Amino acid sequence: MAQISENNRRIVLASRPEGAPTEENFRLEESLKPVPKEGEILLRSIYLSLDPYMRGRMSDAPSYADPVEIDAVMVGATVCQVEESRHPDYQTGDWVLAYTGWQDYAVSNGADLTIIGKGKKPEHPSYALGIMGMPGFTAYVGLLDIGQPKQGDTLVVAAATGPVGATVGQIGKLKGCRVVGVAGGSEKCTYAKDVLGFDVCLDHKAPDFREQLKEACPNGIDIYFESVGGKVFDAVLPRLNIGARIPVCGLISRYNATELPDGPDRLSLLMGNVLVKRIKIQGFIIFDYYEKRYEAFAKDMSEWLGGGLIKYREQIVEGLESAPNAFIGLLEGQNFGKLVIQVDKEL
Amino acid sequence: MAQISENNRRIVLASRPEGAPTEENFRLEESLKPVPKEGEILLRSIYLSLDPYMRGRMSDAPSYADPVEIDAVMVGATVCQVEESRHPDYQTGDWVLAYTGWQDYAVSNGADLTIIGKGKKPEHPSYALGIMGMPGFTAYVGLLDIGQPKQGDTLVVAAATGPVGATVGQIGKLKGCRVVGVAGGSEKCTYAKDVLGFDVCLDHKAPDFREQLKEACPNGIDIYFESVGGKVFDAVLPRLNIGARIPVCGLISRYNATELPDGPDRLSLLMGNVLVKRIKIQGFIIFDYYEKRYEAFAKDMSEWLGGGLIKYREQIVEGLESAPNAFIGLLEGQNFGKLVIQVDKEL
Repeated sequence: MAQISENNRRIVLASRPEGAPTEENFRLEESLKPVPKEGEILLRSIYLSLDPYMRGRMSDAPSYADPVEIDAVMVGATVCQVEESRHPDYQTGDWVLAYTGWQDYAVSNGADLTIIGKGKKPEHPSYALGIMGMPGFTAYVGLLDIGQPKQGDTLVVAAATGPVGATVGQIGKLKGCRVVGVAGGSEKCTYAKDVLGFDVCLDHKAPDFREQLKEACPNGIDIYFESVGGKVFDAVLPRLNIGARIPVCGLISRYNATELPDGPDRLSLLMGNVLVKRIKIQGFIIFDYYEKRYEAFAKDMSEWLGGGLIKYREQIVEGLESAPNAFIGLLEGQNFGKLVIQVDKEL
Repeated sequence: MAQISENNRRIVLASRPEGAPTEENFRLEESLKPVPKEGEILLRSIYLSLDPYMRGRMSDAPSYADPVEIDAVMVGATVCQVEESRHPDYQTGDWVLAYTGWQDYAVSNGADLTIIGKGKKPEHPSYALGIMGMPGFTAYVGLLDIGQPKQGDTLVVAAATGPVGATVGQIGKLKGCRVVGVAGGSEKCTYAKDVLGFDVCLDHKAPDFREQLKEACPNGIDIYFESVGGKVFDAVLPRLNIGARIPVCGLISRYNATELPDGPDRLSLLMGNVLVKRIKIQGFIIFDYYEKRYEAFAKDMSEWLGGGLIKYREQIVEGLESAPNAFIGLLEGQNFGKLVIQVDKEL
């Protein structure tokens, strides 16, 4: 449903979820379309990125970023067009990467924007939210800087068809790794093998998943790219090789958890493995790496995409009002590819 | 008790411990003193190092090194003198660092030896087992390469008066860190503060240890040098700062454990902290670093010791027959300083 009124539709956090979010945690409301002052621009959102980290922003537990306040607009990266400019550096129609959240319109003074199309539409505007943006950069830095892949390493990638996992696995193949994906369902697994070129992809819903993982990694696991946690990690842990590296960019299987699992307490088991196998486990947040690594990423990824070496899949859902349900499904693994909301048609 | 017979006394692993080792797991026996062949040397052990890792060698659980076989001599680093040489590179009386284990005599072809005194006694022969050897090098690499201390960081060091912890803390002070030690008992804590120069040292036996740690680290914890695990780690975890580093060289509090603690299962809690705080946890084994880092360590540590910048304390126990009891006490934290057995008088 395209924007037709002069109002700004926005989705706010109505209440904090306990466990999995429900539609009741969100509220669609309308406010007046904001008016830019001198030096400001009015942005119209075309694409909104939905990402697992947003679950963290819905809670007020301590985290690396402040929570969304109750009744405030849900946060999120967007690809916008400039609808009206009172800023010398922007013209109507320019395409920008912004962080305006789950709403139609926002004003900006330009400080927090990245121009991705000056007066003309970029080839794939929404890629700035995915393969050329935060998820793609997360895959690049996590695998190369923390995972440090070597020719012949066995790399296991969770959420193998998500925007991070799919990119991790494909970069792993470029670096000469044996790549074993883990995904939910046979359709995703087939895609990971046939389209993304993974050596193997396992369905974590299979009752003998643990056994399948063992068979798929006859030489053990050198890198586990962690974004889900839970039973995938549990199956990986005993198969890790000496010197294994575990970049941790997410733990989606735990985001809706309200309490710790029952015992025994395996914290010391994990630390014992870390010691005996000299394992490195390292959490990272991609915002820490833009200054140092973004340029190299943008160059490499453009080349890989241009050369057809990296494939990228999006799932584009129409209409801002669809965002809550789409996001709830994302946390359950129902998306297939990078989830993007088409908020409005382009100008 | 010095060696008086022509026999070789040796302590073998009589049985594998379940939980804490007891004297019954060891057996002192005598064999004939070995006779070197052409190209070999007869080594007489003067000092035997006792170290926590030996507990791992007593078990047959998978680890980074093979277990000691039942009825085989307990392994261990030694400082020996050459008693008889049929090898062109060694003369009677030379001092060497060896790995001949818990016994009086061994023969070697020289391949596994490091000469520490050619024809003359080194100033502190036993230091090769401690501050200038494996424990000192462990402290150096773990803190500098993995911990990466920066001026003003808060560094928490477990087992603060042990040979690794004491060295970690003192190097941390040289690098401008606030150093908070953790040790067992007030005598050790006083020593860590007054002699080693730690800013604070806390007794982990104190009932309000967790609260004390919080007060001692008003700016959180940037580096936790892990060698014990258990309740010290539990108290550290909630205080870790964003970007904290945890080198893991041991988990002595768990070595005698026969099963995991009761739940809840905090593995996901730990991983959640790793993610949200971008923590790096890295296990390491010092044997991996000799080629690349030993030279720098030996140079730095010699200078620091020579300049009085690093203090070093040994606890020397007389007699090979004392080794089992001394080792059992080591796992309980009864030693104070680097535990060394004086096996015999020098030639």
